[in-house]
Amino acid sequence: MVSLETGEPAVKKKIRVVQYGVGPIGASIARLMRQKASLEIVGAIDKDPAKVGRDLGEVVGAVGVKDAPWGVAISADSDAVFEKPVDAVVHSTSSYLTSVMDQLLACLASGCCIVSTCEELAYPWRKHPELSAKLDAAAKEEGVALVGTGVNPGFVMDKLVLTLSAVAQRVDSAKALRVVDASKRRLPLQKKIGAGMSPEEFRAQVAAGVIKHHGLPESIAMVADGLGFTLDDISETIEPVIAAEKVTTEFLEVAAGQVAGVHQIARGTFRGNTKVYMELKMYVGAKEPADTIELTGEPNLSLVIPGGTHGDVATAAVVVNAIPQILAAQSGLRTGRDLPLSFLSPGELP
Amino acid sequence: MVSLETGEPAVKKKIRVVQYGVGPIGASIARLMRQKASLEIVGAIDKDPAKVGRDLGEVVGAVGVKDAPWGVAISADSDAVFEKPVDAVVHSTSSYLTSVMDQLLACLASGCCIVSTCEELAYPWRKHPELSAKLDAAAKEEGVALVGTGVNPGFVMDKLVLTLSAVAQRVDSAKALRVVDASKRRLPLQKKIGAGMSPEEFRAQVAAGVIKHHGLPESIAMVADGLGFTLDDISETIEPVIAAEKVTTEFLEVAAGQVAGVHQIARGTFRGNTKVYMELKMYVGAKEPADTIELTGEPNLSLVIPGGTHGDVATAAVVVNAIPQILAAQSGLRTGRDLPLSFLSPGELP
Repeated sequence: MVSLETGEPAVKKKIRVVQYGVGPIGASIARLMRQKASLEIVGAIDKDPAKVGRDLGEVVGAVGVKDAPWGVAISADSDAVFEKPVDAVVHSTSSYLTSVMDQLLACLASGCCIVSTCEELAYPWRKHPELSAKLDAAAKEEGVALVGTGVNPGFVMDKLVLTLSAVAQRVDSAKALRVVDASKRRLPLQKKIGAGMSPEEFRAQVAAGVIKHHGLPESIAMVADGLGFTLDDISETIEPVIAAEKVTTEFLEVAAGQVAGVHQIARGTFRGNTKVYMELKMYVGAKEPADTIELTGEPNLSLVIPGGTHGDVATAAVVVNAIPQILAAQSGLRTGRDLPLSFLSPGELP
Repeated sequence: MVSLETGEPAVKKKIRVVQYGVGPIGASIARLMRQKASLEIVGAIDKDPAKVGRDLGEVVGAVGVKDAPWGVAISADSDAVFEKPVDAVVHSTSSYLTSVMDQLLACLASGCCIVSTCEELAYPWRKHPELSAKLDAAAKEEGVALVGTGVNPGFVMDKLVLTLSAVAQRVDSAKALRVVDASKRRLPLQKKIGAGMSPEEFRAQVAAGVIKHHGLPESIAMVADGLGFTLDDISETIEPVIAAEKVTTEFLEVAAGQVAGVHQIARGTFRGNTKVYMELKMYVGAKEPADTIELTGEPNLSLVIPGGTHGDVATAAVVVNAIPQILAAQSGLRTGRDLPLSFLSPGELP
C-alpha cells in the first residue's frame, strides 16, 4: 500500500508504546492498543503488587483477542522500563496533576511522548500554570509532546464544542450537556457516583472530595480560550440525583429516595454572565442518555449524539487514537485544541 | 491580555489577507474577515469589469458593518496585488482544480498561504494526484501551506465524520446524510439545484454538467483515508427531487411535478461493499433539514445537527476560521484532516 499523500510506502516502523497504569481504564487501553498493527506494546508499569511481574495480556483479560500471554511483564520500576527505546507512553494513574508530575517528568526525561487520561492535564494552564509551564519546558527540552485527553474531558464537552464552532461566524456562549446512564457501566463507576447512598452520605462524600467527576473546569477553560472568551470565574456544583423509583443494575440496587448518581454543573462566567455552561448527569436509570452541544451566535448551532458516547469505551478510543497525533505534534504541552483528533486505523494485523 | 499558554502578550501582528474572487461566497467571506481584529484585508482580486477598480467594502455590501469604503480597491491584476506583503489568500473562484491551478501557483509563488473554497481542492489526492503533488511541492518550496475547505466538502460530511471517529475503537463503515432546505438560500443556488425545472430539463442540465454539487467524492476519499479504508471505486448519482406540492420561495415558484432540487448519492466501495456512503438532498421545501452522521463499529455512533448547517454562512465561517490554522500548519498541501478546525475569535476590534 502506498500513501496517496506522499507517494511513500505506508509501511512504517511500529510505534513502541508503554502502558503506565493498569487499572480498569489502562487495561481497556492496553487491549485496544493490541488491536492496532501500528503499535507495539513494549512495556507496562504498575505499582500494584498483585500485578507486578505478571504478563500484561493476562492481567488485562485480553478479551476478544485471546492471545495472552503477550510477553510483556508488568513492572513497578519505571526506570528499568525506560531503558529500552520507547516512543510513547499511555499514562493512566490519577485524576490529579500534582499526583502525576513526577511520573510525567520521568517519561519526558526518557524522551517519550505522552498521552494521559489525567483529567487535570486535559487543559491545565488555568488551574496549574506553574506545573503546566514546567511540563511544557521539559517536553520542549526533549523535543517531545504530551497531552491529557479522554472522552470527558478531552472530547464531548470541549473538543467537539470547538470543532462545531468552526462553522460559526460569531459565538456568544457555549453549552454542553452530557446525560449518562450509569446502569451499564462498571461497578467502581456506579459506586463513584454514589449510587445507592443516602443523600446525607452522598453529601459527606462530596465534602470529602470522594464523589466528583473531574474535568468540567478544564473543559470550560479549553472552550473559553478556544472561543476567545475572557472569564473571571469558573464555579462548580455537585448535587445528587435522587431515584424516583427503584433501579436495579447488574451490580446493585437503588431504592426510591436513595441517590441514583451525580448531577454536576459548571459555569464559566464574566461579570456575572455565563459564557460557558456545562452540565453532567451521570446516574443509574437515566432515561435519555445523550451528549448535546449548543452554541449561540451567528448562527445558533446545536449538535446531538443520541445515546451519548460510552465513557470507558470512548476514553480508551480517544487515547489510543491520539498516539500518532501526539508523535506528530509540535513539542511541548499540547491540549485537545491542538490535535486534529480522529480514528487510528487498525492497519494490517499480522 | 497575556496568553496563558506562552506567557507572551497576546497582541500580535495582524494577518494580512487578500480576497481572491468576489462572487457571492467571496463577498460573504470578505464581510466576515472585516469583523476579525486579527485580520487585515490588504487586497482583492476579481476579473469582473463591473467590480474592478471599485472598493471591496462597497462591492460586498458590508452588511452589518456599514463602514465602507474600506480603502481596498478590487484589482484584476494579481501580480500587482502581490507586490505588497501578503500572509494569506482566501481564494474563491471555481469548483474545479484544473481551472484554478495557475491562480493557486501564483499565490504560492508569492509566498502566501491559501485557504480556498475550490471543492476539488478539499481532498484532491485521489482525483488529481499529479496536480496535488505539484501544489504540494510548490508550497513546500516557499515554506507555505494551502488547504481547500468549506462546509461541504470540508466539514459536515468529512471533517466532522473523522472527528466523531476519534471516540471509536473500530469503524466498519461511515455514512453522512445532509438535507438542506434551499427555500431560504440565495437565488443562484435555487437555480443551480434545478428548482422549477421539468424533470427532462433537469436531466439535460445534469448531463451537461451544469447541475451538480461538487465535493462528495472528495469527502468520501478524505473519510476513507482517515478511517484506513481501501476503496476500489467511488461512484455518484444525481437525481431530481420532484415537488409533491407547490412550493413558493422569495425568488421562485415550483409547481407540483416540477423539480424542487437535487438528490445526490455517492458511494465509496471495496469489492462491492459500501464502506462510505454520502447522501445530499438539497431542495426547496425540504421538511426536516439536518446533518446526520452514522458510524458502524465498536461502538455504533451517530451525530445529528438538527436544522443542519447553513451552507453559505458556514462556508464563510470555516474558511475564515481556518486562516490562522493554515499559517500555523506544516508547509505543503494540507487538507481538513490535518487542521484542528475551530472558531477564530473576533478579538478586540478598534
